[in-house]
Amino acid sequence: MPKLTPRPFFSAVDGFKSSKDTPSAFLERCLATFDELEPQVLAFVHSDKERARKDAAAATARWREGKPLSPIDGMPVGVKDIIETQDMPTEMGSALYKGYRSNRDAASVTALREAGAVILGKTVTTEFATQPPGPTRNPWDPRRTPGGSSSGSAAAAGSGMVPAGLGTQVLGSILRPASFCGCVGFKPSLGAINRGGSHDALSQSVHGALAASIEDAWVVLREIADRAGGDPGYSGLIGPAAPPAAQQPRRLAVLETPGWAKASAGAKAAFAAAIETLAQADVKLLRRGDNAAVARAETALERALPVSQQVNTWESRWPINAYRARDPSKLTQFALDRLADAERMNLAQYRERLAERAQIRAIYAALAAECDATITLSATGPAPLGLESTGDPIFVVAGSCLGVPAISLPLLSVEDLPVGLQLLGFLDEDARLIATARWVRDRLARG
Amino acid sequence: MPKLTPRPFFSAVDGFKSSKDTPSAFLERCLATFDELEPQVLAFVHSDKERARKDAAAATARWREGKPLSPIDGMPVGVKDIIETQDMPTEMGSALYKGYRSNRDAASVTALREAGAVILGKTVTTEFATQPPGPTRNPWDPRRTPGGSSSGSAAAAGSGMVPAGLGTQVLGSILRPASFCGCVGFKPSLGAINRGGSHDALSQSVHGALAASIEDAWVVLREIADRAGGDPGYSGLIGPAAPPAAQQPRRLAVLETPGWAKASAGAKAAFAAAIETLAQADVKLLRRGDNAAVARAETALERALPVSQQVNTWESRWPINAYRARDPSKLTQFALDRLADAERMNLAQYRERLAERAQIRAIYAALAAECDATITLSATGPAPLGLESTGDPIFVVAGSCLGVPAISLPLLSVEDLPVGLQLLGFLDEDARLIATARWVRDRLARG
Repeated sequence: MPKLTPRPFFSAVDGFKSSKDTPSAFLERCLATFDELEPQVLAFVHSDKERARKDAAAATARWREGKPLSPIDGMPVGVKDIIETQDMPTEMGSALYKGYRSNRDAASVTALREAGAVILGKTVTTEFATQPPGPTRNPWDPRRTPGGSSSGSAAAAGSGMVPAGLGTQVLGSILRPASFCGCVGFKPSLGAINRGGSHDALSQSVHGALAASIEDAWVVLREIADRAGGDPGYSGLIGPAAPPAAQQPRRLAVLETPGWAKASAGAKAAFAAAIETLAQADVKLLRRGDNAAVARAETALERALPVSQQVNTWESRWPINAYRARDPSKLTQFALDRLADAERMNLAQYRERLAERAQIRAIYAALAAECDATITLSATGPAPLGLESTGDPIFVVAGSCLGVPAISLPLLSVEDLPVGLQLLGFLDEDARLIATARWVRDRLARG
Repeated sequence: MPKLTPRPFFSAVDGFKSSKDTPSAFLERCLATFDELEPQVLAFVHSDKERARKDAAAATARWREGKPLSPIDGMPVGVKDIIETQDMPTEMGSALYKGYRSNRDAASVTALREAGAVILGKTVTTEFATQPPGPTRNPWDPRRTPGGSSSGSAAAAGSGMVPAGLGTQVLGSILRPASFCGCVGFKPSLGAINRGGSHDALSQSVHGALAASIEDAWVVLREIADRAGGDPGYSGLIGPAAPPAAQQPRRLAVLETPGWAKASAGAKAAFAAAIETLAQADVKLLRRGDNAAVARAETALERALPVSQQVNTWESRWPINAYRARDPSKLTQFALDRLADAERMNLAQYRERLAERAQIRAIYAALAAECDATITLSATGPAPLGLESTGDPIFVVAGSCLGVPAISLPLLSVEDLPVGLQLLGFLDEDARLIATARWVRDRLARG
């Protein structure tokens, strides 16, 4: 097993201010890891080290002059290859888009550049950010999946090649690979980050970060939102520019979700130990057995996966039908099957699922009166062996179905492999979730 | 002045059923008008008569066999050139996108093809569906603007080249050109038609139809929604497959809006005569002077234009900043100025405008308890002379700001030029608005 060191940027900024460190030196440390691990991990579809060095040098000059463009000026970032970039192809994990160039930066990438971030490259996505895996391997064990669909960004952040990667999640595509690769995965509230120029236009899809730390995840998304806003018509990520200070939650609702029945004994034990530590610090834990609102939420969330899948299927009819019209031989059987499923659905059935989703959301929202956040596992266990599947999204689909902010923290370990501890918040209360997550992390670090 | 004859398809379908008429013959009538008028009107950026003839022949065979794909099988349609098409360029009225091919059909175009519609060509849009005009001239008088941004679809539908054209509206881009070109312009409820693959991603933007008749507008959008749905997360256009039957409204609220102060005497007189005819048929007219809810709506709508403009400006920051990064010399000064305006705004200001918009919407929604629909002019008068501006959106911005269904009916005439009578409904009650519009049209036709 390799020794993996996440590489936070947020905590390096003090060094840039005092000139003890520079973005160029930071980048070189990232590139050393990249050169060592990337041949096995295959996190990137495309990378441009020379442009990154040039951009880092410019950032270095700005920090030296005391005029950084933002707190992420000089931050090396990987961009999931479902998101358009002007200077690199956007291949979407699809043979149909091999070598495709849109000749424009997506809204989030434009914002990253305005903030001075250094785009190291495009990271591997599964086909169209759905299931069929790309080549990426888990950096902790190359025989294991990195998870998906944000496979490359998770592997790159988990192994210290970059402090942050952009990801997208419509089912479990940020938190699942974060759990498997040992990095933070933060999916903000629905609509929090402008998806313009990204090919993940489904109603549950959200842009988020795979990052070395909670703080890195917050600042990179916050700086994007400041410049690009959220999706049109949405508030954009709400909260202060600096990561919200750690704050102890008074009450956490423990959610088992349908994942509990599938979780490994080791994962359950690690989770139990973690929440016991929190309970000893006077955090009151609410459970389905003793709280009616929690019980109602658990029941409602039993439908999160099938409802999400059907919503996603209908919403995928286009563009897959347009892709099939162009060249069906360049689509995987998964894409063709999904399209066939979509074509068996009708608009009335879709509306029924939307209504059901709205009901699930309302039931969960009632928990806000009971607790500061909810807590559960991010996955049934460590990354499974094999590369043919990106793993089970059963624990993370809740956040996507609900549209609430969700974060996976690399705080559990099972068989020497990372497993994420998941916290879910309430719609547009992303800052409060971050404050809770920082406290939980610090508390568990003390043991 | 040319003699312009709209060419409805919906009423031709009986002829297809009995084989007295065929889609091929229908197309040839369209093409005769096209050949006669297009050299002066310049409604199309790109057209493909031979492919249209082939597709119409296939539709003719299906009708003959009694197996049409849909009620719009064989309908010739123009597609606003902001919407992607696989077989034709998508130039967005921009020098930057000259000759650009996305190699895929947008969701609405894919749905049109599935329903058997015949795509005659791409119709002129202003630059990026905003202000700088394209070459199109008003078919009623080539010295006058056709309106914008859906200039080409309006001119083509108003002059009988096609029974329907797709348009998009974020401020007044469907109803204004419909008013100026003498066709029906129907903008359905927010989110009613899937905008996937169209470059009008703003929060107020909606796809709609410029059409020869109310019925054509309804069926073409309804067939699209049935196959492509609405925007992800939205219900899609709600209502029956056949155009909702005419239904007399009991009460209509007469809205002056800020447009009244700018309307010409002729337009006001034509409007007054029309609503007097409706009043004589026992439709109760509510006005700001005698109804408090109407007065509140009028006051709220005073802010519709500035709020919409600021919302649109912020939401246009991307992609214009990405376009500027590629080649600023290929953007108009309008686009560059708009970007500069966007860059002077911040996310907090945008959120304030969203909150204000939500308030305006809530005040208008309260009118639903008072009336079946609201009624006003579609424009301050006929299309103005000159091609340098697409005219004032002051009467039609309300529908965009509110997100409610709105329709412009070519029922008024001022100085022998068309002026639209506008009806606005309530969110997702598109079918009820169509039923009201059909009754109003029929009643005014009786004089």
